[in-house]
Amino acid sequence: MISYPPVRIAVLGASGYTGAELLRLLLRHPAADIRVLTAERQAGKAMAEVYPHLAPFGLPNTIKIGDVDWAEIDFVFCALPHGTTQEVIATLPAGVRVVDLSADFRLFDPAVYAEWYGHEHQAPELQKTAVYGLTELARVAVSKARLVANPGCYPTAAMIPLIPLLRGGLIAADDLIIDAKSGVSGAGRDAKQGNLFCEISEGINAYGVGRHRHMPEMEQELALAAGGKVSLSFTPHLIPMSRGELITTYVRLRDGDSADDLRAALAETYRVEPFIRVVASGVTPSTRHVRGSNHLHIGIFPDHRPGHAIVISVLDNLVKGASGQAVQNMNVMLGLDETLGLEQVALFP
Amino acid sequence: MISYPPVRIAVLGASGYTGAELLRLLLRHPAADIRVLTAERQAGKAMAEVYPHLAPFGLPNTIKIGDVDWAEIDFVFCALPHGTTQEVIATLPAGVRVVDLSADFRLFDPAVYAEWYGHEHQAPELQKTAVYGLTELARVAVSKARLVANPGCYPTAAMIPLIPLLRGGLIAADDLIIDAKSGVSGAGRDAKQGNLFCEISEGINAYGVGRHRHMPEMEQELALAAGGKVSLSFTPHLIPMSRGELITTYVRLRDGDSADDLRAALAETYRVEPFIRVVASGVTPSTRHVRGSNHLHIGIFPDHRPGHAIVISVLDNLVKGASGQAVQNMNVMLGLDETLGLEQVALFP
Amino acid sequence: MISYPPVRIAVLGASGYTGAELLRLLLRHPAADIRVLTAERQAGKAMAEVYPHLAPFGLPNTIKIGDVDWAEIDFVFCALPHGTTQEVIATLPAGVRVVDLSADFRLFDPAVYAEWYGHEHQAPELQKTAVYGLTELARVAVSKARLVANPGCYPTAAMIPLIPLLRGGLIAADDLIIDAKSGVSGAGRDAKQGNLFCEISEGINAYGVGRHRHMPEMEQELALAAGGKVSLSFTPHLIPMSRGELITTYVRLRDGDSADDLRAALAETYRVEPFIRVVASGVTPSTRHVRGSNHLHIGIFPDHRPGHAIVISVLDNLVKGASGQAVQNMNVMLGLDETLGLEQVALFP
Amino acid sequence: MISYPPVRIAVLGASGYTGAELLRLLLRHPAADIRVLTAERQAGKAMAEVYPHLAPFGLPNTIKIGDVDWAEIDFVFCALPHGTTQEVIATLPAGVRVVDLSADFRLFDPAVYAEWYGHEHQAPELQKTAVYGLTELARVAVSKARLVANPGCYPTAAMIPLIPLLRGGLIAADDLIIDAKSGVSGAGRDAKQGNLFCEISEGINAYGVGRHRHMPEMEQELALAAGGKVSLSFTPHLIPMSRGELITTYVRLRDGDSADDLRAALAETYRVEPFIRVVASGVTPSTRHVRGSNHLHIGIFPDHRPGHAIVISVLDNLVKGASGQAVQNMNVMLGLDETLGLEQVALFP
Repeated sequence: MISYPPVRIAVLGASGYTGAELLRLLLRHPAADIRVLTAERQAGKAMAEVYPHLAPFGLPNTIKIGDVDWAEIDFVFCALPHGTTQEVIATLPAGVRVVDLSADFRLFDPAVYAEWYGHEHQAPELQKTAVYGLTELARVAVSKARLVANPGCYPTAAMIPLIPLLRGGLIAADDLIIDAKSGVSGAGRDAKQGNLFCEISEGINAYGVGRHRHMPEMEQELALAAGGKVSLSFTPHLIPMSRGELITTYVRLRDGDSADDLRAALAETYRVEPFIRVVASGVTPSTRHVRGSNHLHIGIFPDHRPGHAIVISVLDNLVKGASGQAVQNMNVMLGLDETLGLEQVALFP
Repeated sequence: MISYPPVRIAVLGASGYTGAELLRLLLRHPAADIRVLTAERQAGKAMAEVYPHLAPFGLPNTIKIGDVDWAEIDFVFCALPHGTTQEVIATLPAGVRVVDLSADFRLFDPAVYAEWYGHEHQAPELQKTAVYGLTELARVAVSKARLVANPGCYPTAAMIPLIPLLRGGLIAADDLIIDAKSGVSGAGRDAKQGNLFCEISEGINAYGVGRHRHMPEMEQELALAAGGKVSLSFTPHLIPMSRGELITTYVRLRDGDSADDLRAALAETYRVEPFIRVVASGVTPSTRHVRGSNHLHIGIFPDHRPGHAIVISVLDNLVKGASGQAVQNMNVMLGLDETLGLEQVALFP
Repeated sequence: MISYPPVRIAVLGASGYTGAELLRLLLRHPAADIRVLTAERQAGKAMAEVYPHLAPFGLPNTIKIGDVDWAEIDFVFCALPHGTTQEVIATLPAGVRVVDLSADFRLFDPAVYAEWYGHEHQAPELQKTAVYGLTELARVAVSKARLVANPGCYPTAAMIPLIPLLRGGLIAADDLIIDAKSGVSGAGRDAKQGNLFCEISEGINAYGVGRHRHMPEMEQELALAAGGKVSLSFTPHLIPMSRGELITTYVRLRDGDSADDLRAALAETYRVEPFIRVVASGVTPSTRHVRGSNHLHIGIFPDHRPGHAIVISVLDNLVKGASGQAVQNMNVMLGLDETLGLEQVALFP
Repeated sequence: MISYPPVRIAVLGASGYTGAELLRLLLRHPAADIRVLTAERQAGKAMAEVYPHLAPFGLPNTIKIGDVDWAEIDFVFCALPHGTTQEVIATLPAGVRVVDLSADFRLFDPAVYAEWYGHEHQAPELQKTAVYGLTELARVAVSKARLVANPGCYPTAAMIPLIPLLRGGLIAADDLIIDAKSGVSGAGRDAKQGNLFCEISEGINAYGVGRHRHMPEMEQELALAAGGKVSLSFTPHLIPMSRGELITTYVRLRDGDSADDLRAALAETYRVEPFIRVVASGVTPSTRHVRGSNHLHIGIFPDHRPGHAIVISVLDNLVKGASGQAVQNMNVMLGLDETLGLEQVALFP
């Protein structure tokens, strides 16, 4: 076994679900030295109070961002709300490397950012240096980046299969229908009536139809893969579970191709990847099989409509869809074994 | 208030979930005289034992079908498993009218039946007389029928919006993508490992991709509406709740039309219907709002892809998707007020 | 069938779960004329917006209490938060009869009220006129009351079995252990982090151990039944479901008695009650069997400790534990058939 | 970091939930070499088929017990159904050490076994050598044992707090009321109607009242701690979640003592234990805080009844209540660091 030099880490925004999930993973990471946790409204609280399941691990109390001594920090995970992140990251010392879990640095075009977020970007120069961190597909760029924009959960689940297929010209770029289903933890820990147990349990609804903010992020990255504009439909649904995301994507095949061709292409692309698994023909991916783990499973099915196929991908939105991929990106940035801290077996049942 | 002459009813297959749901509704129906309940494996049991929630209502004990005295029965609800139904119904006295909740009499073409069910139909002559009972769209035929084939839950949810749109030529028949999400009660009460709480809770998966038996039923009825063959994709998903079904259908619009045109057309079609509600622009249908009721809600949304729209429909699979529509069909067949026994307000939360 | 003269009803606090549940029940009540709905923060909203499942029923928009024209109201259901209720009810015209679902008028002793609620009661004269409305056990008093204090959910579930047993001297008053388990809807619809889906799902915890405000209410009523002070322990637990409450009470038997004696006594007490059901020996009550209904089921079991027994009672906290019992009390107050509006069959599954 | 000599392990009964959970833990155990997995009915299947979440880990296919080559096995986890275990373990080579997760070797008195299981024990000589493996309280005996009977989930949760309190004479032995609430995974993976999602979701019921087989196991061990017969009541309830168990125990205090005295005593007893956590006064233990981890949390509360207290303990029934404690016992038996393979942080939300 190997001993690792410690990386001194700050988690900004440790009181949210992605913050807690970063801690769950980093506590098992052999190189992680968790030095600083921030939480604005709950500053000063012990983590045992904010998250009792983290009580046994001797974590530092939360402080305010303004009180962080950056001289003792090598690496920052930024799990702050969208919009507040830009200014914070702009003030960090140049030597500190960052994975940002918010959407703030995911859109390269300032005009697209302003259109979807309703205001100008506050750190456009910094934006130019950010790398979109879909790890398996951007490893070299991630390894050199100072600032990695960690992808959204839906974009990760959708694009891990779609990008290689578009790059290879196996599917059409003008006919992508992405029907997504997610557990509730993606909505965060803020108290909102719509996320109460009684309002979520035993029911399903779509939300943000046609205007979810993960859409421009997918349009940007899929267009890069396709070498031109894509036309996509994206409809997320909220289902009564805490973790997990399943995406059903309806694609049009290249003439003469079949679902088997897509499966073979993806199996080849991800053949040696530790976290990506293309399941066999006829096997149905389930979010239960990846809960709590950094794995993403992909299944391909023939569509009853000739010339089309159905791509189903599943992940845990808090792990591969957020904090797990963030740790994976840190590992790549620091030249560490990519699976460090991410060896969890899925929790089933 | 009106007094109704009693209809003497037999429920065949009273030990399944649709059987129990029929009883829940019929117990509040002012004309229903529940005379006979059958259950093959559990014959002889008190309903209080089979379904303790029905204990207070003085229902008859279950018997075997062979022991029914048909002379005392006017109306039969047949909630038997697919395949076993044909022979049973073939033996009923001519004067007894029937709503069959199984799939046995839904497919008019014996070749299609044989293809999907793997054996010849056992009562093809009877099949010719059956009416496909999507009540709102087949009222006249239902009123005259002796045998009504009650539609499947997915077909009801999908086709209540799609049939008028196809009939009116507002959407294309060759590009229908039906992404369905359902609670677990549709899978019935038989003990199967895959339906255990631990295997369903906190997860989602697709199932029967491209080969679900509700597909030929939709192809048949949608082709009738379109006046020609349709091309459709149908992917059901199982989600962790007991009741409820949400269907997201991706449709291609007629040139120049918009989502608003679809909404206006459906609102007009169903303007006076007591059970069908087209919600306003921007409102998101939720299965929570129809749980336990015979209502079906429809929402229409613009698709981000130009020239397309998204149709979302929700129902309770055990009510409008099964037993509620069955009672509604009985009401139409007997010339009763269509809402009798179906006035339940949805149970929320 | 009978026709009823309409009762003109106001529901104060219609935007909470008990308010919505009152509407669900009253919409099916043949004598209820729902005239006024109030909601302070959401005043002016259509009920279709506050509660989409109530959209089909043509209910009035919500208004503020100050805007109610009391001349058009015969009967008030008060579903306001604890503490705000006293002043509101004190201002109502004398001719308006009231069922109050809050805790404000449940405690007869002003000193006990002040101890548990931290301030003096604002309407002590009105308090003296209030009747504690455990319907089956207080029918005559309820029938004559102008103001009925509707019991809490836990007290209803616990005391329907305990009061007759204490009155009859069958169990000891100084050794009552009430272990309660409840769904989350009892906590109301206000947005609180602790009631988010992710914080409730897949877990259980006790809360308010030794200091839940339903305790003094039980001490008061049980002491009346026992003819002297009682000593009780009450521990509620929150479990991941929306509706339902199960109470396990550990009792010490009179010398020589057995669990069978308790069962026989309760069966006799509630022999003709439409909503109370004492289940047979060996049958286990379940909240699933009463969900959405006004029924309360009671099972009695031998305790492994000699001389003790276990009493298990279940109800739906929003129905028999709140709005259902409130309607039942209205029926008694107005001399109507007690089951009007309350004939719902439980929704299972 | 330390390197460990591999322990060659067989898991008998790998297709059940405790079998799968053993694998989840052992896959992260640095000394575990998983050599053999057995499953009688599913023999020959790949684990990827039996448990898709275990697909990525290269586990051996399942075989039948009769086909195991015991020469290559050092250690056996026996996760077979109760009753079938005795004969299997009786045939194992003497050099193989065993942790048995069934109830077969937990009862030292053959008469008690016969009374509760309805037949004579098949391996009474082996029974005499078995150690009851409540690890924290039996470490020395466990370390020397060849055969450890792994305690039941309820007994573990109940007795970790109760045994030290009884040993110290802090609570009465003749007045123990154990009200238990459990998730469904304890019922196993066999298809039973009562464990279907629709039969468990949104409801609660007690089961096995007064006759649950974990009772004699607790009577045996608690009597040893008390130095004489105990009188206890034990009522388990099934709640709609997969994992987790909460036990509320009502105890009578020694004269003059308070809840604080119990808390102080337990805090002292378990001061250095890595898996046992006595929470601070006023803090409420929740199963959510231990899900997926080997931790057990204990809270102590004053009882409203004078002279009594309430003890609340929580664990994950599949980890500290079964497979986690089994691995902990293996670690002790083999002289390994007791936390190996058990460092998981709880999965929340």
